[in-house]
Amino acid sequence: MTLSQIFASRASRMQASEIRELLKLLDRPGLISFAGGIPDPALFPASEFATAFANGLSPDTQAQALQYSVSEGYLPLRQWIVGEMAKIGVPCSADNILITSGSQQALDYLGKVFLSPGDTALVGWPTYLGALAAFNAYEPRYDQLTANGNRKAESYAEEAENAGGQVKFAYLSADFANPTGETLDQRGRESLLDLTESLGCALIEDAAYQSLRYDGEQVPPLLSLEIARKGDIEACRTIYCGTFSKTLSPGLRVGWVVAAKPVISKLVLLKQAADLHSPTLNQMAMHEVAEEIFDGHVETLRDAYRQRRDAMLAALDQYMPANVSWTRPEGGMFIWVTLPTEMDGAELLAQSLESIGVAFVPGRAFFADGSGGNTIRLSFSCSDESEIRTGIEKLGGLLREV
Amino acid sequence: MTLSQIFASRASRMQASEIRELLKLLDRPGLISFAGGIPDPALFPASEFATAFANGLSPDTQAQALQYSVSEGYLPLRQWIVGEMAKIGVPCSADNILITSGSQQALDYLGKVFLSPGDTALVGWPTYLGALAAFNAYEPRYDQLTANGNRKAESYAEEAENAGGQVKFAYLSADFANPTGETLDQRGRESLLDLTESLGCALIEDAAYQSLRYDGEQVPPLLSLEIARKGDIEACRTIYCGTFSKTLSPGLRVGWVVAAKPVISKLVLLKQAADLHSPTLNQMAMHEVAEEIFDGHVETLRDAYRQRRDAMLAALDQYMPANVSWTRPEGGMFIWVTLPTEMDGAELLAQSLESIGVAFVPGRAFFADGSGGNTIRLSFSCSDESEIRTGIEKLGGLLREV
Repeated sequence: MTLSQIFASRASRMQASEIRELLKLLDRPGLISFAGGIPDPALFPASEFATAFANGLSPDTQAQALQYSVSEGYLPLRQWIVGEMAKIGVPCSADNILITSGSQQALDYLGKVFLSPGDTALVGWPTYLGALAAFNAYEPRYDQLTANGNRKAESYAEEAENAGGQVKFAYLSADFANPTGETLDQRGRESLLDLTESLGCALIEDAAYQSLRYDGEQVPPLLSLEIARKGDIEACRTIYCGTFSKTLSPGLRVGWVVAAKPVISKLVLLKQAADLHSPTLNQMAMHEVAEEIFDGHVETLRDAYRQRRDAMLAALDQYMPANVSWTRPEGGMFIWVTLPTEMDGAELLAQSLESIGVAFVPGRAFFADGSGGNTIRLSFSCSDESEIRTGIEKLGGLLREV
Repeated sequence: MTLSQIFASRASRMQASEIRELLKLLDRPGLISFAGGIPDPALFPASEFATAFANGLSPDTQAQALQYSVSEGYLPLRQWIVGEMAKIGVPCSADNILITSGSQQALDYLGKVFLSPGDTALVGWPTYLGALAAFNAYEPRYDQLTANGNRKAESYAEEAENAGGQVKFAYLSADFANPTGETLDQRGRESLLDLTESLGCALIEDAAYQSLRYDGEQVPPLLSLEIARKGDIEACRTIYCGTFSKTLSPGLRVGWVVAAKPVISKLVLLKQAADLHSPTLNQMAMHEVAEEIFDGHVETLRDAYRQRRDAMLAALDQYMPANVSWTRPEGGMFIWVTLPTEMDGAELLAQSLESIGVAFVPGRAFFADGSGGNTIRLSFSCSDESEIRTGIEKLGGLLREV
């Protein structure tokens, strides 16, 4: 008997993802990659971090920086986040905030705290595949979240009960979502709040890309709309997941959760048992850099990524055959491409890597039901405009051939 | 309906720990604390870390340091660990190693990968309470691990089956364990390997304190004894959890797991879904500092902590009443004190904080069955010899009064 044979049943739902395997390709020389949903490292505020880490390790704070610390997270950083949340219509206190090791960890913890095997999670078809990976460990059933109000709460609740559980939460990224790039309008958000209220479930708002808007009007976050309805975060079902990964640095692994205190208190206990706390020094450095440059740095990112988005949309307009369509995101890092029904994104990727050296992510992995074979995700965040133009021209050429 | 009402059933087993509440007391002025199992911050290699973080953020490596990275961990650090493991009789390769955010995260992940609700975990009475907290999330049953061979595998297996699951692993810290300070001798280790082999289960070796031996002969790690039996780590059931938290810095959250490749591969997928990876820069800095000073720094720690242990043992000999007994650890940070049967460690703590200002950890939290009320854990790692002498004298005085 090997140890693999005695793994818990949940382990069978932990499988290698396509994105992970693709990340290994990014180093291949000459490859044009629209695959990774990662920020451009040339835009990291590296010298500011160098100063902040040096300050954190100065004689006054080095003992705190290197020692064990509380599970809630570094208080000045939580207080800074309180200020940022207030700016987007979310009045709250530091007790409403938990620091996590990136928002990926928040998704894992939220799956852990809400999902018993057989419970239902509502997710978009497609949705962020890392969310599916995080939730899978807790063996949920998925149902398709539609934010247009077309499907009634009773229908969701009944099917969840038939499957032996209940709807525990709806999950979505409402702004420039990974993978579609799409934004849910205010009417859709209100409809979603109605739905989760009727279901008595939580609503997980993944705000990973929220501050990366390139044009158009900001739509209020789901949490701010719910607070506007109810007057107080303590009465809210929305759980907001933020991160510095798309703005300051992903590698330092600092994100946060904002929610009513009973949810945060339970997540703090969960984090204490799971990894004690996120690294103290990283939180101190993130706080210093955020306090100094956040708004200006985000403006720099917006200017850079806006140009790349524009370049990619222009190239798609110019080079794609007529039977291919795509989204026009107002922010974020992704454009979602729909190929003719009979085509397969994964097969296209294999051909593309072999014949033209262009990488992207096949869309099927983002669908909890395994559909979406004729979709692909393009990221414009890590390529310059000339690469974007060249890569899309090649991809358009390949699509005309196959 | 509030969100707390729809938490998963596992959430009811995530409760506040006494140690966590106690950590809040450590800042109280004038308090002598033997409570926290934490390293002395005065002994952190802070200037070496300052250099290493600056190097990590230098132009050549800053992009890597701040960017997303692979879930396995930073390869040079894993290779350095390969070298350290070879020195303690564990030949392995980098593919046998996963970097975790402290060994606490390794315990969480091992619970997650092995335990279905109702499965049995074998743990000491007492054991590390953070391990119980980590495993609790996966709703196991606990049975008492005895390493003297007195209880047969059949008995464990039968009771596990009656409880609706199977024995998935035995967990222990074999060297200077938290909380007892005790070390399992080689005969006990061989007996434990026999037991887990008969049960077909895993054996989790928590090596948190292993390098902090102050006298006596090193006993080979369980993993090295199993490799000696079987010839190859790939045939082994032992899963070794190491950490830099007790040697270089806990706040940076860097630990590791060493095991057969199928176990590591599954843990890598689990980590990818749970937090993507541990912070890249922290791993780079830990690697640089470890490579430069590890052996010498551990020697410094041993010298410092040995003196404190000796001071505490001498003070206990001098000041404790005759009806109190304690362990004599050869390393680590803890001495385990057994009070007269009718006394309660938690009540003693309340009295002690009020009347003499001395803190320690009541023992009951370390027992999965809620026994051990008449025990307390003393840590000598963070107090100087004069504080130790004063604190133990006061505690001895209190024990004579109550």
